[in-house]
Order: sequence, then structure tokens, then C-alpha cells
Amino acid sequence: MQPDSSERIRSELAAIVPGRGAVLSSVEDLIAFGYDAAWFTGRPMVVVLPETVDQISKIHRFAAREHLAITPRGMGSGLSGGAVAHAGAIVLNLTRMNRILEIDLQNRVAVVQPGVITADLHAAVEREGLFYPPDPSSLRQSAIGGNIGENAGGARCLKYGVTSDYVCALQVVLPDGTAIRTGGKTVKNVTGYNLRALFTGAEGTLGTICEATLRLLPKPKVTRTAVALFDSASRAAQIVPVVATSGVLPSAVELLDALTIECVNAVHPGVFPTGAGAAIVFAVDGNYEAAVDADLRILADIAKEFGASSVDVARSQIESDRIWDARRAVSPALARRRPNKLGEDVCVPCSAVPELIERVHAIAQTYALEIPVFGHAGDGNLHPNILCDRRDVEEVGRVGKAAREIFEAAVELGGTLSGEHGIGLLKKQFMELDVGPDALALMRRIKDAIDPQGIMNPGKIFPDPGGTSAFDLSVAP
Amino acid sequence: MQPDSSERIRSELAAIVPGRGAVLSSVEDLIAFGYDAAWFTGRPMVVVLPETVDQISKIHRFAAREHLAITPRGMGSGLSGGAVAHAGAIVLNLTRMNRILEIDLQNRVAVVQPGVITADLHAAVEREGLFYPPDPSSLRQSAIGGNIGENAGGARCLKYGVTSDYVCALQVVLPDGTAIRTGGKTVKNVTGYNLRALFTGAEGTLGTICEATLRLLPKPKVTRTAVALFDSASRAAQIVPVVATSGVLPSAVELLDALTIECVNAVHPGVFPTGAGAAIVFAVDGNYEAAVDADLRILADIAKEFGASSVDVARSQIESDRIWDARRAVSPALARRRPNKLGEDVCVPCSAVPELIERVHAIAQTYALEIPVFGHAGDGNLHPNILCDRRDVEEVGRVGKAAREIFEAAVELGGTLSGEHGIGLLKKQFMELDVGPDALALMRRIKDAIDPQGIMNPGKIFPDPGGTSAFDLSVAP
Repeated sequence: MQPDSSERIRSELAAIVPGRGAVLSSVEDLIAFGYDAAWFTGRPMVVVLPETVDQISKIHRFAAREHLAITPRGMGSGLSGGAVAHAGAIVLNLTRMNRILEIDLQNRVAVVQPGVITADLHAAVEREGLFYPPDPSSLRQSAIGGNIGENAGGARCLKYGVTSDYVCALQVVLPDGTAIRTGGKTVKNVTGYNLRALFTGAEGTLGTICEATLRLLPKPKVTRTAVALFDSASRAAQIVPVVATSGVLPSAVELLDALTIECVNAVHPGVFPTGAGAAIVFAVDGNYEAAVDADLRILADIAKEFGASSVDVARSQIESDRIWDARRAVSPALARRRPNKLGEDVCVPCSAVPELIERVHAIAQTYALEIPVFGHAGDGNLHPNILCDRRDVEEVGRVGKAAREIFEAAVELGGTLSGEHGIGLLKKQFMELDVGPDALALMRRIKDAIDPQGIMNPGKIFPDPGGTSAFDLSVAP
Repeated sequence: MQPDSSERIRSELAAIVPGRGAVLSSVEDLIAFGYDAAWFTGRPMVVVLPETVDQISKIHRFAAREHLAITPRGMGSGLSGGAVAHAGAIVLNLTRMNRILEIDLQNRVAVVQPGVITADLHAAVEREGLFYPPDPSSLRQSAIGGNIGENAGGARCLKYGVTSDYVCALQVVLPDGTAIRTGGKTVKNVTGYNLRALFTGAEGTLGTICEATLRLLPKPKVTRTAVALFDSASRAAQIVPVVATSGVLPSAVELLDALTIECVNAVHPGVFPTGAGAAIVFAVDGNYEAAVDADLRILADIAKEFGASSVDVARSQIESDRIWDARRAVSPALARRRPNKLGEDVCVPCSAVPELIERVHAIAQTYALEIPVFGHAGDGNLHPNILCDRRDVEEVGRVGKAAREIFEAAVELGGTLSGEHGIGLLKKQFMELDVGPDALALMRRIKDAIDPQGIMNPGKIFPDPGGTSAFDLSVAP
């Protein structure tokens, strides 16, 4: 790219999106918009902040004409590098499109722009007695567009399913600039292929999500949270398959191992006792106190039967909020223990949760690494985080090997590389290990059919041709 | 196709699937396998009944080599012509693959072959305390493969979502014979594109579904059914948006208008009173009697407030079963009133249900047709059925016009052509009216990428090139 060429591109983009701060290209800005919450950094050519679908269409058409890559971006809270742009790419930053366009009570849907913060949507619909279940732990930072792009999960997915289960309709700008709408304000819709589900979780590689119609539920009137303590994560994990067959469907079964608790206690003291071997956070919800309490008693009995030293039920909303704040603080808390962490997101069948935890702890020993394990144990989605210092080349070598073994363990146990964070840059070299060569080739054919120029968020999901099936944690995109 | 050529094809297929009755080609058989439950008939070249995935792969490879069309088929209970084969096609009849391979209690999934009857799956998992929510009214006839192919719905989708929400994994044979697996025994999975959701509802146009892993829930311990009577369907429909904002999430809100009740009473007397203007069947489920009863009281109060003359709660499982048997008998009951019926499946936002019913009744008047309306009012999915005699050319002309106006009304009200029956042959000429030219072109690109030869269930979903946007009810595929 010649300097005069990038100057021309910036001025053409400024003509599409006029106004102060709409087109950014200072070194500081390019660095600031080149991160997400994973390991990778990129250095895009330019960052554009559109405010309308029409502007997004025009940017796409311009990029297609000039053969420039586009990386859509929300709040940059992703954990797999999905929003980290290639050198030379246009970052389509959607944070200015942050309006809740409609909360339709009778049809129980919200129509939102992609830049709406997840927690803001929660608050807005809950004021109306409605409920948007997906609750990624980053909910105070993450934007709905990113939630859809990565098919975000969270604790409540155990009962309520993932983001994809709530996407009724999307407006998407295709790579060539064509804006399409797919779906509507109905849950049932079998009129042609399910494009909504295809774009959800596609990590911005098939188009830019400009608007979403999200299904809402009636807000449960009662929610109870309880914390059960165990002497080890292995012991705590034993209850997961038992809860699954108990007849109770909790809204969350979260696990924190000893090291996770130690890190959380450093920033959020008082929720978990010092030195606890492991904790399970249960949540149960419903419309009737007696029913919710009865469900919680069943879960408490299971916990005690499997060796919980205590099961404490939060006695107020404040106590419950403190527990969940501590739980959601895990990821930043781990980041304080060592300079870096490689956050994992494997998902295994419930029955394999105990063994996965055993294996991760064994892998930590083998490679002399600290790998705290926490996550949504109830649906098998765990986040082993490998703590390290990226400046230590030898340690990073061990991190790569440990991460690979965790992936292999997950797949061997019938699970998958990613439950809710996506593949992005972080895990693309492992795609074939998980889905196999034929399904991967099929995904590639779909990608090529929708984005024949290959300009939508290139370098994500698909392994680099000729790349080895290994972590290359040192390479920027 | 020369006779000797079709003879050779039959013998090659018999070599792939040996044994008595595995390859059928008598005129009687070709007629018998050329129907579904909609209007259309086809005359395939041959019917094959494979028993293994390997056989399916080989049939696909053979068909690809010979450029022959394949139409996968289950129990032929579909309502849009999706399983009706083209002349010259191979029908891949999957009813011999009817085994439930596994019910995995700890992971709450069932692994099934495509020929399993929906009601058999219900019974098998319920014996284990589990629950498979999708419940198309044809559940005693329909096979799971067809349910997945059409993304079947049912009454319980109001609370529980559609088939797609329960498909964790699929094994699919692609058009070229490659067998892929996608997904696993986890609900969360964002490892690459969501192929499960793409194949679900694709009506056999992208590949043949050979095995499915279905998510199960704990079986609710208590279910209550109630019938509310109204003096008209318009009046009954008024409660739909009110229920949607009530905070209660019923497991079913079914509507039957006066003519539907009259037809049902002719075969299932005693459930609905003679001359009833309309009925709403409510169901509520949960684990605690008090909670379920309280929910039902809220619904009963709404019904009474909106003019229900009575609300009767079923006092036993037998009474409840009688109500549901009558509800599920609607479709065959309507078929007895006139020689033919065109069953519709539009889905509109809940708030538009009252207006849709008004419009359908007006359309019936305009065209002097009987159009009983019934269906899953609670999620906006209604089935206006146009009664007629196909031998009466003049009447069939009016049927086509009325059906078109019903589609247009649904789309105008923010709804869609099909909530749960699929597009198949019946509605393909209306696809562009609903999804628009750009989304349709995108679907076509996906189809071409996965099935470049165009041999998978050709003639379905996509409008005929050069065809008019109209019903041609007289033409066989």
C-alpha cells in the first residue's frame, strides 16, 4: 500500500462517513483498535465508525471495488482474536450504532443495533418485565453484534440455550455491499435456509451484522443463588452429571477451582472463603418462590451428598449480586496474577466434565504451568486459563503444548474447541482436529460462495494454508 | 431415460443395497412413494431403502456419477411436497433406519436414526424421565429425519422452541457421497459455521441426514390442559398478545375456529360443544402442581376477561389426552369435509394474530370458500386450510387466489410463508415475496456451493426460473 493510496482510501471513507472522529488513522488509534481480549494484535489501515446501514453498505462496496479487507468490530472484548484486523484492513467499528430501536412487548422481541452493550439490553428489557437470557461474563463490556458474531453463551445457557436460540432476525450487509434482512418477529420460520443461524457465530467472515431482532422471554419473578464449597474441583465436578439427571434444570451451575478462587479473592474478597478447594455457584429461577426453593433444595442435597462442606443460599439480591460480581471478575482477576493468560473455552459433554478437569490439572503439572479452571460446568463449557509471561519464550513454548493437549483432550472426550468464544485467530490451526477435513472443506465452500473475494474478516476461523496444526502464539495476524 | 438404462440403474442400486424389498420399481410402488400429505404427486424412477450410512454414501456417489436426482424421504407426512420426487429421481427412503441408537441420560441427548417416529422418541425418552419438546401434530406418523428436514414445530414450540433448537449434532451425507459429522453432545459449540442449523430445515436440498443427536430436557412432572370457549375466533384471538405479556409462558396456546370445531366434532365428538364459536386449548407445565395451577389460573382469568364463556381444566390424564387427540385430529378431520384441502402454515408476530384471522375470514368470503383456521396461535403460527375439490377447475382457481392473498397478508403483517411445514413445492413461487431477491440469491449460492450438480431434491424451495409468482396447483413436479 502506497502512502498516497491509503490517503485516498481514507478520504473516500470520510466522504461516506463524514464528521469528526468517523475515520481514524493515527498510529495511536490503529493500535487502540487493533486489540481484543485475547493474545493477538493487528495494525489495520484505517478505522471507520459508521452510523447507518447505508454507510456500511457503501463502505462494503468501496472495499469490494478496491479489494480491501473489512473486519467488523464491537467492543473488542472477544477472546479469540475475531475482531483483530489484518494489516491493511478497514476496521468497521460499530459502537456508534448502539441504539435499542424497539422493545416490542406483545411480540416479546427487542430490535437492536449491533453496538448495544449486552448489560444495557438486559436492563432495558427487564424494566419491561422481559428477559434476554444470554449472559457472557463480559456482559458489561461486550456488544450484541459481537455476541451474535461469536454466538456468545454465558452461565444461563444451561437452562436457556445460546445467543443463536434468540436471534429471530438479522439485517446483514453482505461482502459486496448488498443489505439483506432474514427472519422476522416470529420464532418459527422455515422459509428457505436458516441464514440467521449461519451468520450467528460466523465471526464476521460472511458479512456485517447491522441490526438484530432478539427473542425475549418473560422475566422469571424469582431467582436464587447458592454457593457450595468442596475440597477439590474433582470432587465438585462429580455433581455435574448428577444434576443433569436430577429433573431440575438450574439456570446456572458454575465451577471455580482452588486457584481461581485464590485469584478472585485477591480482588473480590469475602465471597469465597480463603483456601477453599473449589466452589459451585448454583442459580435457579422461576415464577414461584416455593418451586424455586424446592429446586434449590434438591441441588443442595446433591451437593452435600457429594461431599460439599457447606451450601449457602444468598439471602438478598445484594448477596446474590456480590456472588455474581465475583464470578464475573474471574477473568480480570486471573489477568492480575501473571502478565498474560491464554483463556480457553473447551466444551465437553456433561458426563466428561470430571475427567476434563482431571486432565487439565495433569497437563498443568506436566508443563509446570498454572492453569486455573472455571466456567459453566453445568453445560460442560470450561475455561482453563493458562497463566504465563509472553516475554518468556521457553514458558510460551510450554503454554502452546499445554493448550494443544487441552484441545486434544476436549475433542477426545467428545467435546469441541470452543463453546462460546469462537475460533478467530486463536484456534484456527486446530479446526481440522475438531471438525475433520470434510466439514472444514464444506465451511470453506460456504465462505467462498458468500465472500468470493475473501475480503470479510480474512484470516479467521480457517487454518492458514500450509500452516502446521499448532499454536503460533508469537505471530501477529 | 431408456428402459435398459433404468434397468441398469436398478441393478446397480440393488448391488449397493442387497436384499428383498430394498429396491422398488413397480408402478404401484412408485405411486405409493410419490406422495406426501400435500397436493403433489411425483413418479420417481426407483425407490431404495438403505440400512446403513455407508449404503447412503454409495447411493449418493452413484447418483452423482450418473447425474441422477436424489429425494430423501421419511414417512411422507410432510405438508409442502418436500418429499415428493421428480420424475427420474431416486427416492432414498429412510424408514428402515428407525433405531434409537442411544439415550444418554447424563448428557441429556438421544442419538437417533432418521426413520424413528417422533412419538416413539417421545415415549422412549419419557420412560427415562426426559423430554423431547418438538411435537408436530403428525407425531404419530412423522419421522425425525423429516422433522429435521422441515425444522418441524408443534404446539409446545411456544415455550420450548423448534426442532432446530434441539439438534446438537448431525451426520449428513453430502450430495457427492461424503459423510460428515457436525456438532456433538454439547449444546454450546461455536467451532466454525453452524452447519447443523443450515441442514435443519433445508428440506433435503443440501444432503441426506443419516443420524441426529438431539438435546433433551428433564420431563416436566406436571402438565395441565384447559379448554376455553369463545363466541368467535376473532374474540379468542384477542387473548394471544395478552398472554404474551402476562409473564406466564404456557407450553401451548392452540386455537380452533368454529368450522374447525365442526369438522373435529364429526370424528371426535364430545371434546368441544356443538356449535362452539371458537376454542383455545391451553397447556402449562412445570415440576410443581401449585406453580402450574397458579399459571393456569392466570391464563383462565385472561380468557374470561376477554369473553370466554367457559374455561374447563382437564381433570385427568385421560381427559387431557382426549383434548389433544381431538386437536391432533384436526387435519384429517378437515380432509373429510371436502375431497381436498390446501393446508397453509403462515406465521405472524403474536400481535398480528387477531388481524390475520380477520383477513383469512374475509378472504374466504371474497372467494366463496370454506377456510377453517386453527393452529399454534400462541406463537403466531396458524394453519388456514382451504377446502375444495380439485376436480372443480373453477374452484381450484379461487383456491389459488385465496392462498396467494393469505400469503400476502402474512408477509404484510410482518410474518412468513411457513412456520413449520417448509416451502417444498407448494410455496416456492412465493419465496421472493417473502425473503426478497437478495436473500434468495444468497440461498441459491449456498445451494450451488454444496450441491454444484443440483442433484439433491431438485425443484424444492427455489422458484422455477421463469415461473410466475403464482400457485400452479395443477402441475405435478
